Amino acid sequence: MTKSIRIGKIGIGGGQPVAVQSMTTEKTGDVSKCVAQIIALQKAGCDIVRVSVLDEEDARAIGKIKGEVSLPVVADVHFSAKLAVLSVESGADKLRINPGNIGGEREIARVADCLKAHKIPVRVGANTGSIERHFLEKYGRSAEALALSALENVAVLEKHGVFDIVLSVKASDVPLTLAAYRYLAERTDYPLHLGVTEAGGGDAAIVKSAVGIGALLCDGIGDTIRVSLTDDPVREVEIAHEILRACKLERNYVEVVSCPTCGRCRYDCMALSQRVRERVRGVKKPLKVAVMGCVVNGPGEARDADLGIAGGEGECLLFSRGEILQKIPAKDAEEEFFRRLFELLEA
Amino acid sequence: MTKSIRIGKIGIGGGQPVAVQSMTTEKTGDVSKCVAQIIALQKAGCDIVRVSVLDEEDARAIGKIKGEVSLPVVADVHFSAKLAVLSVESGADKLRINPGNIGGEREIARVADCLKAHKIPVRVGANTGSIERHFLEKYGRSAEALALSALENVAVLEKHGVFDIVLSVKASDVPLTLAAYRYLAERTDYPLHLGVTEAGGGDAAIVKSAVGIGALLCDGIGDTIRVSLTDDPVREVEIAHEILRACKLERNYVEVVSCPTCGRCRYDCMALSQRVRERVRGVKKPLKVAVMGCVVNGPGEARDADLGIAGGEGECLLFSRGEILQKIPAKDAEEEFFRRLFELLEA
Repeated sequence: MTKSIRIGKIGIGGGQPVAVQSMTTEKTGDVSKCVAQIIALQKAGCDIVRVSVLDEEDARAIGKIKGEVSLPVVADVHFSAKLAVLSVESGADKLRINPGNIGGEREIARVADCLKAHKIPVRVGANTGSIERHFLEKYGRSAEALALSALENVAVLEKHGVFDIVLSVKASDVPLTLAAYRYLAERTDYPLHLGVTEAGGGDAAIVKSAVGIGALLCDGIGDTIRVSLTDDPVREVEIAHEILRACKLERNYVEVVSCPTCGRCRYDCMALSQRVRERVRGVKKPLKVAVMGCVVNGPGEARDADLGIAGGEGECLLFSRGEILQKIPAKDAEEEFFRRLFELLEA
Repeated sequence: MTKSIRIGKIGIGGGQPVAVQSMTTEKTGDVSKCVAQIIALQKAGCDIVRVSVLDEEDARAIGKIKGEVSLPVVADVHFSAKLAVLSVESGADKLRINPGNIGGEREIARVADCLKAHKIPVRVGANTGSIERHFLEKYGRSAEALALSALENVAVLEKHGVFDIVLSVKASDVPLTLAAYRYLAERTDYPLHLGVTEAGGGDAAIVKSAVGIGALLCDGIGDTIRVSLTDDPVREVEIAHEILRACKLERNYVEVVSCPTCGRCRYDCMALSQRVRERVRGVKKPLKVAVMGCVVNGPGEARDADLGIAGGEGECLLFSRGEILQKIPAKDAEEEFFRRLFELLEA
């Protein structure tokens, strides 16, 4: 069990639900654009939002942003203890820094004092671009080097009395990411922030993030996740929730299962399953709905569905939890299926 | 190490490359449509294709299909030993059956004799709809029940002298799928066919398949994979390759990494990375290209890229393997970046 840490109103670690993070792409100093983006992220299911702080305008904007949104805000600061301190004083709920680039021991002490005074947690970590040179020389660009770099950052903070720490070790290489987090999970009880970095865009990015984050979550590793896509950050949040659902860490939604269809399929299962997915999107209810291509395998394979339809030649089956509800002529099947679906959704 | 099995010209198991499978959705008896679909699947990178056999017309069509395509063809047959035998005699390179529904001991013996005479392998397995009743009663709908059902099918075949077996245990529940395959991997050396069944469509299906199949592949489990999507089967093959790439089991392609961009980004990184992805799609060359949002983190994080671009205020950086190649005014950067990319692709 990892340590429990508070980031504003959200708790992570210690067995609390895995929190979904994302990051704004608007300039933080542009408060109205930034707020609009955060509200869109929150609507999509984001729990914690990170903003980058490049200058004093950005740091001061955090206070204004916090006045208009309810999500905890994390300030991402590099190269400047002054901006880190200003961000916390402005209201940031958490810092994301690299102690290694903040400007030496005295500057680290300054940030640490500020974190303790405001009782604010901090995320540190390493990515393949920020591995400490001595680990790189000893271990190469490896999981050990990544994890040990992250743990060295932890040691620096602990020396300054900071113990509210979240850790990350991100790489764009998925097996390396898995190995580094597993290494950390065995050696620390600080909460872990999972992500695959520079995942890119398109299918490749979704798949990389799903494999990297999902494999760890299924093994019980990870307290908060951030899917990194070169795309609208709202997509990051959507994919993050799909990962949580795939790992059975989120159940309060309508799961739509459907078969890939084969030569056995006699109706447009693909189109119907898409209409069903659209209809149930965003509904918060733990239900399972099945759209199956054939009466041969459908009801059996989708035995645990609360409602299912299986297509046949001229006739469809509607079923629930393995029981046949009715046989119905194909032309009337969809209407009756949706009628029963609405009933379930509103029950 | 799993046992090596031949499916036509493709070998699986025993450390051979993980083969990508898909399944046609056209009626198998409609030879010209089926052939067209198989050719599209092959072009997308499919190694083995499965067709469903519902009647004698389908079984006989396999011979005609085999005359027009070079991919190994697997016949998916249920409820009929006669159709299974006819499919093999017609030229199928592998059978997919459930011994439990093929019609009793004598019928199983008939299929087994046919498999041995033609030296053809067979896939058996269980999914959550076909768990043997006595395991269901003893273990519930669990990983053990799934895996033991599959192993019981293996025992039935072995009793009849069939040892060229591929095994699968599919569920639509990802953690259950992982647990069942891990259970099998410890207890059998037959090659494993991985898949998440009834994954459905849209993001959810891609994510489920990526987590389920990818987590196992990263742990060294799995010899052939089939992504099941309620979508065009060509998409199944595309996603399968993305999973292999994420797991570093496929390297002969151009990987495009790019950062999610943040408030630090000063150019349209998202649009450029998409153009780059389109340009390199299908190129078989082990290269890594990086499109990074900012000069602060870009070159360091993408240190292992063969070519990279990082955007800045008015000026971009081009870099290769961590070395700056040149600073260039933003307006000329994309053209120069693509010129260097073409050079690399054609080198």
